[in-house]
Parts: sequence; structure tokens; C-alpha cells
Amino acid sequence: MDYKNEKLAEEKVFKDPVHRYIHVRDKVIWDVIGTREFQRLRRIKQLGTTYLVFHGAEHTRFQHSLGVYEIVRRIIDDGFSGRAEWNDEERLVTLCAALLHDLGHGPFSHAFEKVFTLDHEYFTQAILTGDTEVNAVLRNVSPDFPQKVADVIGKIYPDKLVVSLISSQIDADRMDYLQRDAYYTGVSYGHFDMERILRVMRPDEEQVVIKSSGMHAVEDYIMSRYQMYWQVYFHPVSRSAEVILMKILHRAKHLHAAGYSFKYDPVPFQSFFDRSIELEDYIALDEHVLMTYFQWWRKEDDAILSDLCNRFLDRKLFQYAEFDPATEYRKIGELEQLFKEAGIEPEYYLVTDSSSDLPYDFYRPGEENERVPIYLQLPSGELRELSRSSEIVDAISGKRRTDHKIYFPEDLFEAKQEEQPLYKQILEMLRK
Amino acid sequence: MDYKNEKLAEEKVFKDPVHRYIHVRDKVIWDVIGTREFQRLRRIKQLGTTYLVFHGAEHTRFQHSLGVYEIVRRIIDDGFSGRAEWNDEERLVTLCAALLHDLGHGPFSHAFEKVFTLDHEYFTQAILTGDTEVNAVLRNVSPDFPQKVADVIGKIYPDKLVVSLISSQIDADRMDYLQRDAYYTGVSYGHFDMERILRVMRPDEEQVVIKSSGMHAVEDYIMSRYQMYWQVYFHPVSRSAEVILMKILHRAKHLHAAGYSFKYDPVPFQSFFDRSIELEDYIALDEHVLMTYFQWWRKEDDAILSDLCNRFLDRKLFQYAEFDPATEYRKIGELEQLFKEAGIEPEYYLVTDSSSDLPYDFYRPGEENERVPIYLQLPSGELRELSRSSEIVDAISGKRRTDHKIYFPEDLFEAKQEEQPLYKQILEMLRK
Amino acid sequence: MDYKNEKLAEEKVFKDPVHRYIHVRDKVIWDVIGTREFQRLRRIKQLGTTYLVFHGAEHTRFQHSLGVYEIVRRIIDDGFSGRAEWNDEERLVTLCAALLHDLGHGPFSHAFEKVFTLDHEYFTQAILTGDTEVNAVLRNVSPDFPQKVADVIGKIYPDKLVVSLISSQIDADRMDYLQRDAYYTGVSYGHFDMERILRVMRPDEEQVVIKSSGMHAVEDYIMSRYQMYWQVYFHPVSRSAEVILMKILHRAKHLHAAGYSFKYDPVPFQSFFDRSIELEDYIALDEHVLMTYFQWWRKEDDAILSDLCNRFLDRKLFQYAEFDPATEYRKIGELEQLFKEAGIEPEYYLVTDSSSDLPYDFYRPGEENERVPIYLQLPSGELRELSRSSEIVDAISGKRRTDHKIYFPEDLFEAKQEEQPLYKQILEMLRK
Amino acid sequence: MDYKNEKLAEEKVFKDPVHRYIHVRDKVIWDVIGTREFQRLRRIKQLGTTYLVFHGAEHTRFQHSLGVYEIVRRIIDDGFSGRAEWNDEERLVTLCAALLHDLGHGPFSHAFEKVFTLDHEYFTQAILTGDTEVNAVLRNVSPDFPQKVADVIGKIYPDKLVVSLISSQIDADRMDYLQRDAYYTGVSYGHFDMERILRVMRPDEEQVVIKSSGMHAVEDYIMSRYQMYWQVYFHPVSRSAEVILMKILHRAKHLHAAGYSFKYDPVPFQSFFDRSIELEDYIALDEHVLMTYFQWWRKEDDAILSDLCNRFLDRKLFQYAEFDPATEYRKIGELEQLFKEAGIEPEYYLVTDSSSDLPYDFYRPGEENERVPIYLQLPSGELRELSRSSEIVDAISGKRRTDHKIYFPEDLFEAKQEEQPLYKQILEMLRK
Repeated sequence: MDYKNEKLAEEKVFKDPVHRYIHVRDKVIWDVIGTREFQRLRRIKQLGTTYLVFHGAEHTRFQHSLGVYEIVRRIIDDGFSGRAEWNDEERLVTLCAALLHDLGHGPFSHAFEKVFTLDHEYFTQAILTGDTEVNAVLRNVSPDFPQKVADVIGKIYPDKLVVSLISSQIDADRMDYLQRDAYYTGVSYGHFDMERILRVMRPDEEQVVIKSSGMHAVEDYIMSRYQMYWQVYFHPVSRSAEVILMKILHRAKHLHAAGYSFKYDPVPFQSFFDRSIELEDYIALDEHVLMTYFQWWRKEDDAILSDLCNRFLDRKLFQYAEFDPATEYRKIGELEQLFKEAGIEPEYYLVTDSSSDLPYDFYRPGEENERVPIYLQLPSGELRELSRSSEIVDAISGKRRTDHKIYFPEDLFEAKQEEQPLYKQILEMLRK
Repeated sequence: MDYKNEKLAEEKVFKDPVHRYIHVRDKVIWDVIGTREFQRLRRIKQLGTTYLVFHGAEHTRFQHSLGVYEIVRRIIDDGFSGRAEWNDEERLVTLCAALLHDLGHGPFSHAFEKVFTLDHEYFTQAILTGDTEVNAVLRNVSPDFPQKVADVIGKIYPDKLVVSLISSQIDADRMDYLQRDAYYTGVSYGHFDMERILRVMRPDEEQVVIKSSGMHAVEDYIMSRYQMYWQVYFHPVSRSAEVILMKILHRAKHLHAAGYSFKYDPVPFQSFFDRSIELEDYIALDEHVLMTYFQWWRKEDDAILSDLCNRFLDRKLFQYAEFDPATEYRKIGELEQLFKEAGIEPEYYLVTDSSSDLPYDFYRPGEENERVPIYLQLPSGELRELSRSSEIVDAISGKRRTDHKIYFPEDLFEAKQEEQPLYKQILEMLRK
Repeated sequence: MDYKNEKLAEEKVFKDPVHRYIHVRDKVIWDVIGTREFQRLRRIKQLGTTYLVFHGAEHTRFQHSLGVYEIVRRIIDDGFSGRAEWNDEERLVTLCAALLHDLGHGPFSHAFEKVFTLDHEYFTQAILTGDTEVNAVLRNVSPDFPQKVADVIGKIYPDKLVVSLISSQIDADRMDYLQRDAYYTGVSYGHFDMERILRVMRPDEEQVVIKSSGMHAVEDYIMSRYQMYWQVYFHPVSRSAEVILMKILHRAKHLHAAGYSFKYDPVPFQSFFDRSIELEDYIALDEHVLMTYFQWWRKEDDAILSDLCNRFLDRKLFQYAEFDPATEYRKIGELEQLFKEAGIEPEYYLVTDSSSDLPYDFYRPGEENERVPIYLQLPSGELRELSRSSEIVDAISGKRRTDHKIYFPEDLFEAKQEEQPLYKQILEMLRK
Repeated sequence: MDYKNEKLAEEKVFKDPVHRYIHVRDKVIWDVIGTREFQRLRRIKQLGTTYLVFHGAEHTRFQHSLGVYEIVRRIIDDGFSGRAEWNDEERLVTLCAALLHDLGHGPFSHAFEKVFTLDHEYFTQAILTGDTEVNAVLRNVSPDFPQKVADVIGKIYPDKLVVSLISSQIDADRMDYLQRDAYYTGVSYGHFDMERILRVMRPDEEQVVIKSSGMHAVEDYIMSRYQMYWQVYFHPVSRSAEVILMKILHRAKHLHAAGYSFKYDPVPFQSFFDRSIELEDYIALDEHVLMTYFQWWRKEDDAILSDLCNRFLDRKLFQYAEFDPATEYRKIGELEQLFKEAGIEPEYYLVTDSSSDLPYDFYRPGEENERVPIYLQLPSGELRELSRSSEIVDAISGKRRTDHKIYFPEDLFEAKQEEQPLYKQILEMLRK
């Protein structure tokens, strides 16, 4: 039989706390899951440093990827009211794109990308089309199959409806991670009625639209998203951990550039420091390697690297304070000066950080990062943009909310404030 | 104020999916949680290799330890009907023992211990009483406090009632892990009515007993335990992964002894190979370090080490078959011979493994590992051993169930069975 | 011992799906629960006709009342950070008010009250202070105790903080019913983190306020409320059933006034028809009695009464259409005319109905029904009205949303539209 | 189109707390649900008097019937691995039988049946084949269709596999009610992994069998059943309520026979008293009618009838004590004598009651009520009876457990024990 139509002799299932079971019948899907590059996602946490605040958040991109696949599989196989039958290859392209959309994520992805100016989307494409196990499986379907999967993930696939299942303002990716992250953190925010949303999804030419009777379920989904961002994803303590993580990588890079002689030579980081990254290096680098080096770098002579590693591993994080960049610009400058006088490098110990989210947006033609809005399909068949019907969504639509914080090692100043008046002064300034 | 009575200005809580919130008011508890040795438990998975079968099972001993603490805290603070008031120190000893009972676990604990003949209980004691951060915090309560905590965990503390809260056939440890493991794996087996059990626990002189009206809740707990063992803890695929993990460590140890020159020198394993382990080495070794070395050892020249590491990381596990040691002893011998002829080392590739559980036992005086049974307290005050009242418990009481399996790389034989008749012959024998 | 301090020998618990267990230790509370008037609440559904849409919604005011009590009990007994100790009587007044706040509800309360122009709050007061079992229990605490309980429920009790626990925009009543109604209907909307809200409640002089760090939990609660109103409480099919229910009672009242001779004499309704209601009559009237009469009235000769009863019991409800009173006023008049021509009484078969909700409101001095807003307590101690901090709440704050519908027996017109052109015309007009 | 193949224009769903959604696509099913006789099941509680112990247990046979239908629909439509395609009529017969299997249940079914020596199975058949709305709908499929549905429910349908889906030791009926009753009561016992069981069900010639790898899921289901029986269904307080209910009916029947002149004439009971029941009478009698009469009979002059009604409605139930019929036979006789001397009729106030359950049984040929056991299907295809593989099931297999209790109005004796030595003597005897 044709490989793309080949079915497993018996359906395989994965037990999943969020979707109960994840069902696999296609041989291709089973083979993709078995590849080295997909298994690697077990070694990348879904929520990076969040586990330092919500101790349950140890779940990985591996299971999230399976979850996105399962949602898309249900949309396709349980019948997408109104869409013409899927042809076999198109169905498989869509399922593979769902499964593989996060394939290029690196360890602690956002922080890591930022420090080394990388882009996980680039690596997703590279892994799909390079000399990898997953490429071999996909190529087995047809020579241009890997590229098609990459195109869906890269949002340039011709069928925009397919693209919108995986990336849009209401896609399988978000529906999985909101529920999954809520489950593992244990918060009560990520609940919405996904079954109902799946039932009211309708295929339109360019994207998925929502039958208008399902509006409230979508409102609930957008509220979930809003709450998860501010309660979980942007939690200041998790950001504090991320700040330290970035500063560790930053310091190591700096020391390397400065010719520092490491006790524990950062071999796996070499090519990242030198910006000569081979695909193989990228794939080999996972969170275990980072955590192992952090463990070792505790013992480096460089006091900053050592201290930051201790802080990260032993969860002695930075304290934070609100900070308004518009009005307190000068204060930061003064603080930096005081830190230097106190012998504490502000580059590593006085960090400003902002989180910003646009929970939902309508269409703004011509703007960068323009977003395809969610459309309701009225009984007449006419489409109406969601925020025009929903007061709640309208309230948050297009409103970017930003939160600025300043992070610093309060413990350090507190410990010595009695002896050192300068420390006391700094503390007072920080807390004001 | 006395350190042991010191309370936090404001109660701290941890969001926990199993107990909703974990509450901390005692300064000592808060300080213990902040120590390096306790934070290290974040880097030890609760269920070792189980995540390779149940992908949700990434949870750590850190959160399990908090969970056990929370259960004991509720027992003590919400009033343990009938027991005289706890004095402050005794309460704190009990809480600390609950929190720290798993402190000495190593990476992938059981497998690791087996290969290097270690005992995590020994290391728990060593960490509590050695030169560690956690010892410093506990000593701050009183000089003999660390030892008292160690005694509860070591089951030699004079007040047996306190010991029984943390280790007995119905203790806070088991109540937490059954629920927690069920939550993260997503299976439906770990449910029982813990609130009811907490309400029917009564203090007796030597141990916790159960008000007889709560018998059914306890039955349900024992069934949970029984199902979790066979459905999750002894899952053959997870055991297959554990077999490979042990064989990796075994091979590395062997190569080291044989003077093999590693490309990636196993520095952190050195003292384990040589049996000259310092406490500091032990604490520094976590699952990240093991996983990092497995990643690196993929590239070693030794084909066995490299293959086993690939298998573990890429989840190309061994297949398994039933095996009856009583009648098939000879078959193993024959298979070993055939493996050797085929050029495959049976020591690493033909592994027998047994799981065995005694879900509940009544008291058998004089036997080793004697267990304190669960007693029901009748309305008259009289105690009666559980299996005398419960048919279901009686059915499984004292019956050890054992499962024998043989593990082998089926893929390897399958791939070449057409070319090599010997491979085919081996396969047929294994599958028979 | 003093009755008000008397405790049960052993705590009693009720198994509750929402709060797990409801705990009773006070003898007074136990005795109140055992009274005839409180047990009567088992015979009044919490959600009236909603069970005809959400078949799970068979739960009663009895369990809701226990739930409100349990929430208030936890607020008081688990320590209300910051409030001075409660004195025994004040605590008991508050608990009793929580338990008894719905005592005066009649069968299918809102519909019933509307038809007979009654007020359940009046009856709550009457039952508390009249010659009833519950009054006897309360009077046993002290002679003025029943009145104090009535005053809390009536919102005229001097301590406004106590009043606000039971009736305010974030009170125990709402927190229970949102969760309970969501549980029994099975919808996913009623979830919010009540444990967190209880933890961030702070006592202020006049009311409960919320620590500002808990703002998002309160947002979630308000969104729950919003969604429950529109998805469950105002569900048009449930309103259709309520419309029919009211028309049944209306018709029976009309027939009685017109001297119609009932086959099944509506004895229990007599005093309601004649507005000479004795407390005893009121208490005796429950939903069973109404349902029994509906069953019997199916066989009355009056075609309207009989038809409406059949419709209600067999769930042959009215169809509905959107309707804008501002612009379609004339259309209703025309339809009424056509109905009359068709021999169908518009008074019973052409019903307009509006639902309207104000999900949250800030303070509007001087307006009727002024609502006490929810205040956040900032770290500085300063209070800030919720909608000033929360964009989402601001979006819906003070905005009354109203939904107008017209209900009619579509089946009746459909059945005969081929024979009767007038029926067809009416149908077309209704559907337009 | 053929009525039996007619589909609804758009799928209808019922929101269900247990199965999330219940899906209806067949016009026949939709029409059956809309019949008067099926809607009547909304007025019969699933668990009779249990709501007096577990206040959540207000759920009805209506929703249970939908639940059983949904499970069977999933088995059929989601593909029953291995069975040949269902033909349309056979599928519909099976779905209708699932939906209608409880159609003949009367109010408080078991108690009611016992007092009036009725059999709900007889009435199910009668409603299906008599002059009813449901018969009209079914007959519309084909003239012999109602009888076929009746035959499945009556277990005489030729295809035993179909019968076993609805009544066997592991059928859709039990799977629904265990989960549903657990949900509404809030107990933690009714959980088992139904999805897994549905996945391991295999069609055999005469019945459904279970793939042996699913054994543990079935064990869990049998344990659920066992626990639900003893924790919920046989709860002594619920049995106490049932005892009183039966005694009310018994007393009314007796008074009627004795020519007592009722203030509230028991018209709807007449034909039951006289054993001249018309189908219409039976259908008209629901729990609302019973509860209404209980309310009215509180005011009858007959002290026994009035007292029992007060007890039932105000939940002043009888107390209970253990009782061993083998050894305490004489004691009952003595107590009866003493009751008579005290002027309390033992026929109504001294009631012995037994509950008895056989949680699972293997096949016992020739015995009455022989049960078809559950078979496991081994990998070889061979069938093995469940208890031969499962120790736990073996432990309870074929073991009937019986619980005997004696019920009596303790309150009555307590109130006057000081004045009346006889009362005190009776109390002491009862409590011994």
C-alpha cells in the first residue's frame, strides 16, 4: 500500500491528561513520533522557567505537540461540517504540521533565542528539510512532502484554511497549550469548552470561522488566554528566573569572548558563541545540557557566573519592583551608578524587563504583524468580526497591556545594609 | 521569638494540582524548602523512566515532598481527633520528616541505586546530619533536631505514632504519590477519598488506626495502590526503559574498570565507579547530568554504550516477552548461547527482569520486613486488623504477585532476519 | 452549656459535590437544618425550569443553602485575616443568615412570584419570625436572635461587613450558586478559584474588600457570572418553559376568577388566587404540588389550560424569535390581531419576554438599587473600585445587556399552514 | 427518505455532566425523546430516596436513559473493532432499546413495586407496545419494530450480542449509572476508565467480551460497582427513608381497604389499591403525585399515616441497629410484644430490612437467575472467565454479601424514656 495511506494494524494510543487519549492510526504519524528529532522535544519544557513558580509545570513540548496533533485530527476526522472531503495527502500534511510545529524550539526557548539571536522557526524549517530522521520519514511520503509541511508551519502554504488550523487567533496550538498549561500548573484559568468550539468551527475560504451561536465559548477561550498570560506566562517570579537564565548565558558568552579559561569548558555552546551553528549542534543542545553546565559553573572562579548559577539552581531569585520607563528613566541611570559604586555590576544585577500582550486583535491592514481576526458566521452566512459582537472581547481588543519591572538581588543588599550605608540607600531607592 | 515557633508575616502558598494549595506558615519549613538540597529534588523525577510511557509523568520529588508535608500538616493542624495537643517541637519534627523523607534520592533512583549498590535512605540521613544547608537550618532549631528528623525517617523515633504518619501501610507518603502519579499520568486509577480517610484516622499508641466506619474508603485506597502498581509502576515499557538505563550505567562502569578511554570523560561518575563517594558528589549528581552524558556517549566508539544511549534517548526500547523462571530456566541459557553466536552480548541485550508487589499484608511476626498492618477501630474501641473485616483486602492480603519478563532488541533481529537465519531462529524462540 | 455554644459530640458532614464536604459542629446549625421549613427547600429546585434545557439541573435550594453556609463558615472559622475575633453570637447570626437566606422561596420562584405578585424576601422574614419550627430553634438562642438573622438577610443589620458576606457583588451566595449551577448543568463556565478569593478577602469597616493581588481571581469570577447568566440563566428555551409556566398559573387564576368549575379543584392555590395567603399555605406549596396539578389539569375541559399543561410536562415548548421593542412595537399589535383572527388567544400564545443583566456595577449614588461596588485593597491600604483597575470588568461595568424575545407555538402553525393561509402568514411574520 | 434512515438537518446535543455531550442525529431517536412517556422519566428520580442522604442525588431516569443511549451509540458508531457492519434497523433497535430500557419505572420504583407487587419490566413492555406516543413513533419505523425493541429489553431478542450491550454484567446501563450516581452524590467511588473499556470491548457470538489487556480496567469497574452498592445504594439512612416510604403506602392501602374516609381522597392510587391498573393510570403516577399526597396526608386524622408522612417529608427518619436473623429471631418477637404493650404498632414502627448484593458472578448452570459471566479474550482468541484471571474479582465472585438491619423510631422512645420505664426498656433492647 501507499505509505501515505498505510494504517497501523491496531490503533495506538497515548494516555494524555488533557485529551484523555491521543489516537494514532497513520503509519506516517507513528514513524514521525519515533524520530530522534521529535523525541528530543521531551527534553524541552513547554513553559521554560515557570516550574520555579508553579512546581507542576514540568510538562514538555513533546506532549504539547501530540496534543495539537490530536485536536487537528479530531477536527479533520470527526468531520468538519461543511468542508469538502480532505484528500489523503492534504490531511496528512495538516496532521504533520500540527505535530511538528514546535520542532525547532531550543532549550528554554525564548531566553536562549534572545541571548544568541536565534529563531526557532528557522530551525523548524531546517530540521524538516535537512538531513534528519524526520525528513527521511516525510520524504518517504513524497519528495516535496517535507517542504509542504514546512510551508504550513511557515504560513505560506496555499490553503490558508489549513494554515489557520495551526496558527491563527483561535488555533489548535493555543487550544492545547491553554488547557495543558492550566492542567499542569493547577490554576483554574485555562478552562473553556473546547468540544463546543470544535463543534461550531466552520471552514471558510481563507480560514476557520465560528458559527455565531458559539460566540460565548470563544469569549471564554479568549478570557482564558488573557488570564493565563497574566497569571502564569508573565508571572514576575518566573520572569525573574528567566532574567537570571539569560544573564548566565550572557556572562558565559562574554567570558568566552574575553578569553576566560573555563574549568568546565563550554564545548556544546562553542558554536553558539561563535555563531557557527551546525544543525547537529542545535539538535544536541537540550535543557539537560544547560542545567548540567549551570551545575558545573557554580564552581567557576568567575564570581558572577558562579553566583548566577547558584541563584538559578537553588532558586535564590531576584526581587522585583514596578518601574515606569516613561517617568523613571533617570532613576535607572542613578541606580546603575550606585550599583557600580557598591561594586555590583548593574549589567547583571539590575535588570529591567517588560512583558506585553495583545490578547486579541481585529484586522489592521498595513500594520506589521497584522493578525487575522476571528470571524463569526451569522445564520445568514455573513461574517462578522468577533469584537463587533462581543463586548468583552471588544474591551480588550487591540489593547496592548505592558508590564515593566526591575529585577535585583534584594537579599544581597539586605544582608549587608547595616554595615554598608550605600547598600541601605540602594535598597530604599529600589523599594520606593 | 524562638525560631521553632517563628511564623511568616504572611502565609505562603504553593499552587498544587493535587492539593490545590500547599500552605506554609512556619519559618523553619520555609527555610528548609529554600535550601540547596531540597531544591535539588526538582531535578529528580518522581517516576524515573515512566515518562517514556506516560508522557505526563515529568513531575518531580520536589512537589511530592511538598505534598506529603501538606497532608501531614493537615492531619496535625486540622485536629487529629483524640490526640492530645502536639507540642511545638514534636509538630515541627513531624512536618520536617514529612518534607524531607525523600531527600537522599538519587537520579532515576532505583536503577541508579541498583547499579552502584547504594541506598537512598543512607544518603537521606547523611544529608540531614552532614555539612549541608538543610542541616544548618534544622540545627538552628536545636542541636539534636536534625537527628530527630532523621530518626523519624529512619523509623527509630520513639513515638511510633509519628513514624506511622510517614511510613506505614497507610501513610501520607503513599496517599500523596498515588494521587499525584495518577494526576500526572492521567490514569483513572489513583482516586480515593483522602478527605474521608483523614477524617477517620485516629491516633493509637503505636500507630494511626482507622475508625471502622471508614473501612470502605481504605479499601478504595488499597485498590488504588494495587492498580497503580500494575498499571503504572510496573508497566513493562517503563521497565524496558529502566533495563536500558541500568545497562548504560553498567556498561560505563565496566568500560571504566577496563581502562577504556572515554571521549567524554565521566568525571561526575568517577567516585561512583570507584566507590569513594563524597556527599558533595552525590548531591551534585542529578538527572540532568545523566541525560547529558547519555547524549554525549551516543558518540563514543564503544558500540554497546553508544547503542544503548541512542535507545534510551530516542525511545527505541527493548521488546519484551513473558517468561517463567521455574520452567524456562534452560531456555534462557540456550538463548544466551545463540546471542553469543550471533555476536550480540547477552549481558546487555538479553535481560530478565521481575516485578513483584505485596499490596497489603497483615502482621507476620518474626518474618523479615514485617509490616505493621492497618487496624480498624471498632465502636467498642477494640482494634481489628483490616483484612479480617474486608473481603477485598483479604483477597489480596499477603499474596505476593510477581511478573517475569525477558527484554531484548527485537528490532535488531527483525531487520536482518531475512539475511541471517540465526536471527530468525532467535526471534522465533523469543516470541514463543 | 449555653445553647449557642453547644457543639455536637461528633462533627457531622454532608457529602457535597461542590465543596466536597459540608461541616457542621454547632448544635444550633444542626437543629435548624432539621426543621420542617428548611427541609422544605429540598422541594424547590435551584434553577426552576432550567432542567428542561440542561437535564442535570435538578438540584435544589436545600443544597445551595448548605453551600452558602459552608463558604461563610470557612471564611469565619479558617480565619479572616485581619478581623478581630468574632464573638459567639455574631458568628452564629452570620452562619444562620447564610443558611437561611433563601428560606422564603416559593415553587419555581420567580415565575410564581410574578404571577401572584409575591416577594420571597417577605416570606423569608415571615418564616423566621412566625410560628415555625425554625423560629423555635432560633429563639432558643435568645429572644431577639430570629430577628437578628432576619435583619442580616434583609440587609439592615448594623454590621455591614456581615451583611456583605451574604449579599454583595461578591458574596457567598453567588460564589456557591455559580459553581453549583455549573456543576449540575455540566457547563464549563462557572469555574473560578474560590480558594484564592477566600484567601484575599479582607474585612473593611463596611464590607469585604479584596487584596489587590487577587484581582485576576475576581475578574474570573465576574466573567463566570457573566457567562452563566447568558449561557444558562437566560437560556431562551428555559425562558420559554417559564413563559408557559406563568401562563398556566395565569390561566388557572383567570378561570378561578371567572367562576370556572374545575374538575381538579385548585385547593392549594385558593388563597393565592384570593390574596389571602396564610404562612402555612405558603409553606405547604411546593413544586410537587404544582407539578401534580399540571398533570391533572391536562384533563380539564378548558383547552388553553389543558394545552399549556401538556406543553410544560411533555416539553412541547414555544419557539422564539428575536424582537426589538423599539422598532417592532407595531408588529406585535398586528400579530395579536392576526392571532385573534386565527382563533388563538394572544394573551397566552404570543408572549414577549425580556432578560436583562447588569453583571457588575460601580457605585452610582442616588440611583435606585444602588450597588455596593467591589473594592480592591492596595498594598498601601487604600481602596480602589474594581473597574478602575480591571479593563475587563470596566468593559462590562454598568452596561445593562437586555435580550428581547417573542415566544409562540410554532408547531401549531406549522401543522396547519397548508390548509390555513392565515397560519402561513402568521408564521412568515414571526420568522421574519 | 426512509424514516429509519432519516437524519436531522443538524445534529442535536444535550449537555451532560457525565459524557460532556450526548449526540443525536437520527430523527427516530429525536422523536422518541420527545414523547410524553419518555419525558415522564424526568419525574422519576434515578436513586429514589437516596437524596435524603446524598443531597446531590436529585438526578432522574431521563438523563440516565440518555446516558445509556450515548454509550451504546459510541460503541456502534465509533466502530466496534471486529464486528461486521451493523444494518440500519439493527442499529436503531439497539439504540432505542438503550434509550428506553427504563421506560416502565414507577415513582420510587423499588419501594412502590414492592408494596403493590408490580414489575417495571412488565410496564416497559406495555408502554412500548400499547397505545402510546412512543409506540406510534416506533411503529413508524416498521410494524414489528416496537416489539423488537421490547425483545431486546426483555432479553429474548435473537442476537444475544445486542442484548448483552444493554444487560449483562458489564453493560452500558451499569457503566452509565455508576458514573452518574457518583457524579451527583459527589462520592469518589464511581470512577473507572470507561474509554478504555469501550476500546477493549470485542464482539463475540453471544456477547461482548473484553480483550485481556483491558482486565485491570474491568477490575476497576467491578470494584466501583462494589463500592457504590455498599456506600451509596445500600446506605442505611436511605434504606430507612425507603422503609418509611413503603410503610406510608402500606398504611394508605390498609386504610383504603378498611374503609377509612380520607380527607384527601387518594384518587390516583385507587386502581393500585384495587389491582385494576390501567396503563394510563400507571403513566400518570409520578413522584410529584406521591410527594403531594404525602404533604396532604400529614393532615389526615390517622395518626400513623400522618406521622409517617411527617417523618418522610421532614426527614425525621428511623434509627437503625444491626440485627442477625439467625440468632436474634426471638428478640424481634419479644420487641414486637413490647411495642404492642407500649401502644406502638410494630407493623409500622419495627421494621427489619435486608440488603444483599452479588457484585459479580461466574456461570452457574442450572441456577435461577444465572448470570452470563464476563469473558476475557486472550491473545490466542481463547475466552477465559474473568475471575479465573483476576484475584480481586475472584475474591468477591459469587459471594453474596447481606446486611440485616432493624429500623425503629428512636426519637419517640428517647423523648419519653424518663416517664415510661417500658420505653426505656425497649430502647435498651434495641441498642444492645
